[in-house]
Order: sequence, then C-alpha cells, then structure tokens
Amino acid sequence: MEIPVVRNVLEANEKLAAVVRERVKGILTLNLISSPGAGKTSLLERTLTDLAGEFRMAVIEGDLQTDNDARRVAATGCQAVQIDTDGGCHLDSNLVLKAMDHLDMNGLDILFIENVGNLVCPTEFDLGEDGKVGILSVTEGDDKPEKYPLLFNLAKVMLLNKVDLLPYVQFDVERASQFARRLNRDLPIIHVSATKNEGLDEWYAWLRAAVQRKKETGAI
Amino acid sequence: MEIPVVRNVLEANEKLAAVVRERVKGILTLNLISSPGAGKTSLLERTLTDLAGEFRMAVIEGDLQTDNDARRVAATGCQAVQIDTDGGCHLDSNLVLKAMDHLDMNGLDILFIENVGNLVCPTEFDLGEDGKVGILSVTEGDDKPEKYPLLFNLAKVMLLNKVDLLPYVQFDVERASQFARRLNRDLPIIHVSATKNEGLDEWYAWLRAAVQRKKETGAI
Repeated sequence: MEIPVVRNVLEANEKLAAVVRERVKGILTLNLISSPGAGKTSLLERTLTDLAGEFRMAVIEGDLQTDNDARRVAATGCQAVQIDTDGGCHLDSNLVLKAMDHLDMNGLDILFIENVGNLVCPTEFDLGEDGKVGILSVTEGDDKPEKYPLLFNLAKVMLLNKVDLLPYVQFDVERASQFARRLNRDLPIIHVSATKNEGLDEWYAWLRAAVQRKKETGAI
Repeated sequence: MEIPVVRNVLEANEKLAAVVRERVKGILTLNLISSPGAGKTSLLERTLTDLAGEFRMAVIEGDLQTDNDARRVAATGCQAVQIDTDGGCHLDSNLVLKAMDHLDMNGLDILFIENVGNLVCPTEFDLGEDGKVGILSVTEGDDKPEKYPLLFNLAKVMLLNKVDLLPYVQFDVERASQFARRLNRDLPIIHVSATKNEGLDEWYAWLRAAVQRKKETGAI
C-alpha cells in the first residue's frame, strides 16, 4: 500500500532534480552520504581549506537539527547554506533548490551537498548531483557495503575514512573493498584520514579530474 | 502534503504495536537503535553469551539485506529470527508481529529487537517495546545526541560503546552526556566496550533490574 505514495514522492523529486541539474551546469556537484559520524564534515573542512586557492567551492549542509556543521564549514571561509530537515531523514531536490537560492553560484567550481547522516534513505533521492560520494569509516565494520548495498552500488567514489584507526579495530580492508566492487566494479576506493591528514592527495586528484570532466563534458 | 500519509502510517503502526505489547506481557522487550556499525550485534552476541545461564532470550534481527547478523546471534545458541526489510530504513510493528510467529515465546525473559542501522527513521516507530536502547559509539562524535535528539530523548538507557577507542579519537564524554541528559534528564548512560569486555556488568545489572520491573509491574 505504501508503494504508490513512495513512487509519487520519488517522481516529484526526479522532476526537481532535473531543475537542479540545469542550474549546476559546469559546476561539479557531489552528494556526500554516510552513516552519522563517519566524518563527512571533517573531510569537507579539510578539503575546503586545502583547495581554497584552487577552486571556488560552496556547501549545502543537511541536518535534522542544529547548524553546527554549517558553522564549521563556513569557518573555512567558504559559502555555506544550512538545510534544517526538521527531523527528516534525507535531503530532496526541493530542499536543495531552496538552498541554492541563498548561494552565489557565479564562477563556482564545486558544490558539495552534505546529506543527513544516514546510510539508507538519502541514497534513493537524486539531488541533481553529478555523483554520490560514499563515505565509510573503518570503525563501522567491513560488512557495511554488503549490508547497505545501494549507496555503494550508485557511488562514483568511495572514501574509506579514519584509516588511522585501523590498528585498533577489526576491519578487513580487502573484504570491504571486495563487497563494494562486487556492487560497482570500477569504484575508486580512496583511503583517507581527515583528522590525521592521510590520503587526501588522492582525493584531491580525483576532485581535480572530476571538475575537469564536468567542465569539458557536462558529466563525470 | 506528505504529513497525512505519514500520520496514517504511524497510526496503523501504533495499532499493531498494541498487539505486540499484548504478546510480550512479562517479557522485557527492548528495541536497539543506533547508527550503522555502532556495535549493536557485537553487544548482543556478548550479552546473549554471558547471560545464557540466567535468562531465556530471543532476538529479532532487522536488516536491509543479508542475514549475517541473525547468523551471528544464532551462533550463541539463542533463538533468532531475521526480518529482511528489502531496503526499508526501519522496522515497524507489522514486521515484528510476523517475526514473532516464528519464535517460541514460552518462558522468554527478554526479547531483543535489533533495528536497522539508522539513527533517524527507526526512532519514530513504536514496536510495542518496553524501551528503546540508544547505542552511540565514541567514534561517531560527541555531537550526536544533539544532532539526533529524538532517540536520546526517548531512550530508557544509553550505551556508550567502543570506549576502548577513546584514547584515539576526539570525543568529549562529558559533552555527549550533557547533550543527552538535556533531552532526557535521568537517562542512565553506561560506558561499554563489547569487543574488549568493558563495562558490561553495569549493563547486565540494568537488564536484571528491568526484567524484574517488567515481571512485577508490566512496564520498566
């Protein structure tokens, strides 16, 4: 009985995602999805700081409550707009469109959309992005790509975060990577630690290439 | 526009939750909620093993995909029933009722329901339980009670898991506890490490007291 409702919601979302897509022509637009606490905001803080001289970037921050993350991101000097979902479990393209009205999109190279911390619901909602970035932290367990397959199936890149904690947790990197690549054969998997500044060069190289592909071909 | 639909879904769920409540009279029924990878299954494995001689226990395992967790739990010798939500982001009481048809409820002391790994959606759905157990791992960040307030507001007990990792992460226990207690003044907060076997005696003492309250008063 729920299926028709869900379908209507997703169809309405899809129409507005097309409007977003029109508005981000030439701007690399990434939808960051992870569990709560996997490190999305820390990765953004680091990325916005390190690439400030190279790219013009903006962030749309989705949260159930609080504007803590938007404030953290804005502290890097970057444009940041907060979406408060008022308890809602994911962002949709209507919310993203409204947030974009508060952004100066002129000359932007990259628009990051930090979704609500949730491995399930955000994955089903296209926000008009060029790609989803799936972030998994090693403290969550190596079974997560198998247990939450949709994100890892759809992602354009996977960031394996908190690799500095690998000595202290049971996490088989090979096993997690195999699960993810079974769902998504050519998925780039980049090992990083946002807090310990490890592996970020590879992430930045991926971003540079994606910015260029977007500008040249309109997609990544 | 979505609100009436959501209300109908929640009302239908509430009616079936009352049916569950009738069927778990005298059985302590706990709804375990956390982010993906916070350690619900590891805590259950340890609890079921350590208290096997003391209580008769059963587990209903909710997962989007895979029956890995039900197999892990069943390996302790405990009755376990898997609910596959087929991508759905939470359990509801209809699913729980169906799962209960596959359980021998006679003489049970405790029924654990391990919800889908998700800090948002499961919180809104009453499963007919006596209480929600909110599990937060220290690797997720001390801001989570503030950012995901509903769970910590409703929980009867909070388990702060993975405390063995505190030396390696930035996590202010006092800050997390203050946020949680601002939402829920008398919330018991128990520090545990399921993998390193720390703090579990306090959790077991809480369980023993709750089993007794349920048997004596019908609630906890």
